[in-house]
Amino acid sequence: MTARQDPSTRGTALAWPRLSELVAALGGELHGDGAREVRRIASLESADAQAISFLAQARFRPQLEATSAGCVVVRPDMAEVALARCGAAIVTPDPYLYYGRMSRWWVARQCRVPVPGVHASAVVGEGVHIHPTASIGPLAVIESGARIAEGAVIGSHVHVGFDAEIGAHTRLAPRVAFSDGCRIGARGILHSGVVIGTDGFGFAPFEGCWEKIEQLGIVRIGDDVDIGANTCVDRGALDDTVIEDGVKLDNLIQIAHNVRIGKHTAMAGCVGVAGSARIGAHCTVGGAAMILGHLEIPDHTHISAGSFVMSTLTKPGHYSGVFPIDDNATWEKNAATLRQLHTLRSRLRALEKKLTP
Amino acid sequence: MTARQDPSTRGTALAWPRLSELVAALGGELHGDGAREVRRIASLESADAQAISFLAQARFRPQLEATSAGCVVVRPDMAEVALARCGAAIVTPDPYLYYGRMSRWWVARQCRVPVPGVHASAVVGEGVHIHPTASIGPLAVIESGARIAEGAVIGSHVHVGFDAEIGAHTRLAPRVAFSDGCRIGARGILHSGVVIGTDGFGFAPFEGCWEKIEQLGIVRIGDDVDIGANTCVDRGALDDTVIEDGVKLDNLIQIAHNVRIGKHTAMAGCVGVAGSARIGAHCTVGGAAMILGHLEIPDHTHISAGSFVMSTLTKPGHYSGVFPIDDNATWEKNAATLRQLHTLRSRLRALEKKLTP
Amino acid sequence: MTARQDPSTRGTALAWPRLSELVAALGGELHGDGAREVRRIASLESADAQAISFLAQARFRPQLEATSAGCVVVRPDMAEVALARCGAAIVTPDPYLYYGRMSRWWVARQCRVPVPGVHASAVVGEGVHIHPTASIGPLAVIESGARIAEGAVIGSHVHVGFDAEIGAHTRLAPRVAFSDGCRIGARGILHSGVVIGTDGFGFAPFEGCWEKIEQLGIVRIGDDVDIGANTCVDRGALDDTVIEDGVKLDNLIQIAHNVRIGKHTAMAGCVGVAGSARIGAHCTVGGAAMILGHLEIPDHTHISAGSFVMSTLTKPGHYSGVFPIDDNATWEKNAATLRQLHTLRSRLRALEKKLTP
Repeated sequence: MTARQDPSTRGTALAWPRLSELVAALGGELHGDGAREVRRIASLESADAQAISFLAQARFRPQLEATSAGCVVVRPDMAEVALARCGAAIVTPDPYLYYGRMSRWWVARQCRVPVPGVHASAVVGEGVHIHPTASIGPLAVIESGARIAEGAVIGSHVHVGFDAEIGAHTRLAPRVAFSDGCRIGARGILHSGVVIGTDGFGFAPFEGCWEKIEQLGIVRIGDDVDIGANTCVDRGALDDTVIEDGVKLDNLIQIAHNVRIGKHTAMAGCVGVAGSARIGAHCTVGGAAMILGHLEIPDHTHISAGSFVMSTLTKPGHYSGVFPIDDNATWEKNAATLRQLHTLRSRLRALEKKLTP
Repeated sequence: MTARQDPSTRGTALAWPRLSELVAALGGELHGDGAREVRRIASLESADAQAISFLAQARFRPQLEATSAGCVVVRPDMAEVALARCGAAIVTPDPYLYYGRMSRWWVARQCRVPVPGVHASAVVGEGVHIHPTASIGPLAVIESGARIAEGAVIGSHVHVGFDAEIGAHTRLAPRVAFSDGCRIGARGILHSGVVIGTDGFGFAPFEGCWEKIEQLGIVRIGDDVDIGANTCVDRGALDDTVIEDGVKLDNLIQIAHNVRIGKHTAMAGCVGVAGSARIGAHCTVGGAAMILGHLEIPDHTHISAGSFVMSTLTKPGHYSGVFPIDDNATWEKNAATLRQLHTLRSRLRALEKKLTP
Repeated sequence: MTARQDPSTRGTALAWPRLSELVAALGGELHGDGAREVRRIASLESADAQAISFLAQARFRPQLEATSAGCVVVRPDMAEVALARCGAAIVTPDPYLYYGRMSRWWVARQCRVPVPGVHASAVVGEGVHIHPTASIGPLAVIESGARIAEGAVIGSHVHVGFDAEIGAHTRLAPRVAFSDGCRIGARGILHSGVVIGTDGFGFAPFEGCWEKIEQLGIVRIGDDVDIGANTCVDRGALDDTVIEDGVKLDNLIQIAHNVRIGKHTAMAGCVGVAGSARIGAHCTVGGAAMILGHLEIPDHTHISAGSFVMSTLTKPGHYSGVFPIDDNATWEKNAATLRQLHTLRSRLRALEKKLTP
C-alpha cells in the first residue's frame, strides 16, 4: 500500500468512501453492492478486495480475469466478466477517463489539504497581495508587489519574484522559482524545481566575446497548465514567452525565450524548444524530441520521441526521425556506410545509366 | 507591456530617459528630436510611439516599414526608411550590438537594484567574509569560510558551501547551489537552479557492484561566465573542472567532472559533456548536442544542434549529425532500410563487379 | 591544490596521515618509507612529492615515468618502475579500486563531518522521528510524519515531505526535494536539485483537453543508491516507481512513473526513461540515451550513449544507434540521401533483377 493512500495520512474523522458515494459523485452504472467500502485505487494486478480498479483496453482482459479487485470500472462489453470475477463493477463508456476523475475525487476527499495562511517562517515583501484562502508554506519568499490569488498554494522554499502573479487555485510545489513579473493563470501546477522566467540565452557577438542582451519580456502562462519537475521556461527578450491554456509539460524540459506553445499541447520529458519557435495547439511532442528556433509547427502535429525538428512543418501529421538501435557491431557497420551514402547513390546512378540503353 | 518595464517596478524618483541621454551614453548618430522620451524597448512588431526598436538584418525591412516605433536603431543604409516611418532614428554600424548595450543600459538605469547587506533571515557560518557592498538575500545559507566579493548578489535560498569564493559583481539567482570550495570570478551570472560542484559520476566496479570514488577536485569558473537555469557542473575527481573566462552556458546543460571549456565558448540548452572532455575556445555547441568524454574539440569548432561527438575532432570546422525528420511512414521505411545499409553496399559492389569487364 | 584537500578545511587537531596508516587501513604491499606523510591524492600529472597517485592502466605508463608523486599505487608489474621514479609504491592487483577506497578513507579521515542535531533554523513538523545521530541542516523543512534514521544527513533547504522515510547514513545534499511518502534506504546519496516523487505525467484525453490523473504511488529507493544533481524520479500512478539497491544515476536524468530499475544498474547523465519501462540489473546506459515506455531491457544489457531504445530488447548485449557526426556539408548530402534510402533499395533491387538471368 502506498503512503499516499495509507490511513495514517488521512484526516482522522474521515470514513472510507462507499461505492454508492463514488457513483453519486462521478456517474456510471453500478452493478453490485453500493455499500462496499473503497480503501484504495489499484492496478488490476495489485488490487485486493478493498480496492477499486479499471480496465482501459480490451487487451488487458487476462488481467481482469485474474484480478482480486473488489470492484472494476469497465466498458459495457466487459461488465459481465468483471461482475463474475469481482462481484461489483461500474460500467461507463470510457473507463480510463473515469479512472482519472476517480483519482482526483479520491485525492480531494482523502488527502491532506494545505492550511490557508502564511507560515511564520516565510519572508513576505512590501505591497504583496495574498488572498486569505491562499497557503504560503514554510521558508517561502514572496517579493514585493507579488499577487497570490484565492486558493493558491505556495510550497516550501518557493521564490515568487517582484510583481509576479499566481492565479486562483494554482499550486507551486516546494522549491519552485517563479521570477519577477511573470504570470500564471488559474488551476495550474508547477512541480518542484521548476524555473520560470530566468533570462533567455541572448548575446551579441563582439570582437570574439559575447555581450549580454538583457531579457526584458516575461513568461505568461494560461489557465490549467501543468509543468513538470526541473523544467525551465525562459523570459522573452523583448516580447513575452507564452504558454497557452491547458498545456502540459513533463519534467526536465527546456523552453527558450519567445517560444509560444498553443492550447492543450503536451510535451513529454527532456524535450527542448529553441528560441522563438511557435508550436500550435493540440500537438504532442514525444520525450527528448528537440525543436529548433524560429520555426512553426501547425496545430494537431505529433512529433515522435527523440525526433529533431529543424525547419517549419507546413502541415499537421505524425513526424519521426530517430536512428534505429541495433546490436553494436551491426550499428558500427551501418553507421560507417551511412557516411558514404551520397557516394553510394552516385554509384547506383552510374550503374543504372550503364544498364539503360 | 512587460512587467520588467512597467512603471510600477521603477524607482519613484526616476524620469523616463530621453533619446539624447541614450546617445550620450552609447554613441550612434541621432536623427530626429533628442528630447523624445523612451518608455520601453520593443520589437518592431509590438513597438508603439513611446518605444525604441532596432533593425538587425535587411530582410526584416518589411517590419520596419510597418512599425509604430517612435525611434529605430538602424544601419546607415536604412536611415532614410526609418526616419520616414518613425520620425527618429539612431544610426550605427551594428544595430544588434547597439540593442544589446541599450538593453543593459536600460536595466542599469530603470530596474531594481539589490540592497547591500545580509538579509536578517540568511544563515551565515563562521569565518565568512562578505564585502559590505555585497547583497545576501533572504534565507540564503553561507557556510563557514566562504568569501563573497564586492558588489556580488546572492539570491534567496542560495547555498554557498564551505570555503567557496564568489567574485566581484557576480550574481547568484535564487536557489543556486554552489558547493564547498568552488570558485567563480567576476561579473558572472548563475541562474536559478544551477548546481555547481556536486560529485562527478565516479565509481569503481567491484564484484558486480559500484564503489564510490570521492570527488576531491573543485569547479573553477573564470570571469564573465553565465550559466543557465538548472545546469549542472560537477567537481573534478582529482584535478578540477574548469570553465574559462567568457563562457556562456544555457539551461539544463550537464558538464561532467574534469571537463575543460575554453574561453568564450557558448553552448545552447540541453547539451551534455561527458567526463574529461576538453573543449576549445570560441566554439559554439548547438542545443542538445552531446559530447563524449576523454576527447578534444579544437578552438573555433561549431557543433550543430542535436549532434553527437564520439571522438576527437582534429580540425576546426562545422560538424553535424542528426537524423532527418520525415513523415512517420516514410521514416519507418527508411529506418528499416538503414538497418540493412551495409548489406546494400555489398550488393551494390557485387553489381559493380559484375558490370566491370 | 583543491579546496577540499586544503589544510584550512581540516579539523585543527588532525595530522597528515602516513603511508603506513593508509596501508594498515586498506591493505596492499608497501614499498618504501611508511613514515612518509600524504597531504593529497592527485593524478600522475599534477602530483607533487607530498601526493599519492595511482596507475590504473598500463597505457598510462609514460605518465608514471614522468610523475613527481611521492608514492604511486600500482599493479605488481609496475612496482619496479614506480619505485625507481617515486621512492615509494603500494602494490595491489586493482589500483583503480584501491584509489576509490583511498578516496573514501581520505574523506572520512580528513574532511568535515556534519554535526548531529537539528539546526535552529530548520522547520520540523509534528510527529517527525529524527534519530539523535542524524543531522538536519539550516532552513531544511521536515514535514509531519517523516522519519530520518541514524546518521542521516539532511542538507540546507531540503524538503522532506509528509511521511517520507530517509534511511540510515543516507545523505541529502542541499536543496533536494523528497516528496510525501517516498522512501530511500541506507547509505544513499541524493545530490543537490534532485526531485523525488513529483507527479508522473498522467492525463486522460477528453474533448481536446487533458484531464489530470492523480499519481497515487510513491518512489521506493533501495540501499546504496546515488542520484545526481537535478535528476527527477516521478512517483507511480497506482503502483510504485522502484529503484533497487546499488543503482547509480548521474545528473539531469528523468525517470518517469512506474519505471523499475534493477540492482546495480548505472546510468550516465541526461538519460530519459519513459513510463513503466522495466530495466534489468547490472545494466549500463550511456549518457543521453533514451528509453521508451512499457518495454523491457534484460539484465546485463549495455546501451551506448545517445542511443534510443524503442522496443523491448530480448537478450543481453551491447546496443547502439547514433547518427555519425561529419563535416556539415557531407552530413547534409548524406542526410538528404537518407530520406530516399528506401527508394534506393528498390532501385538496387531492380538492377539486380535485370542482371539475374
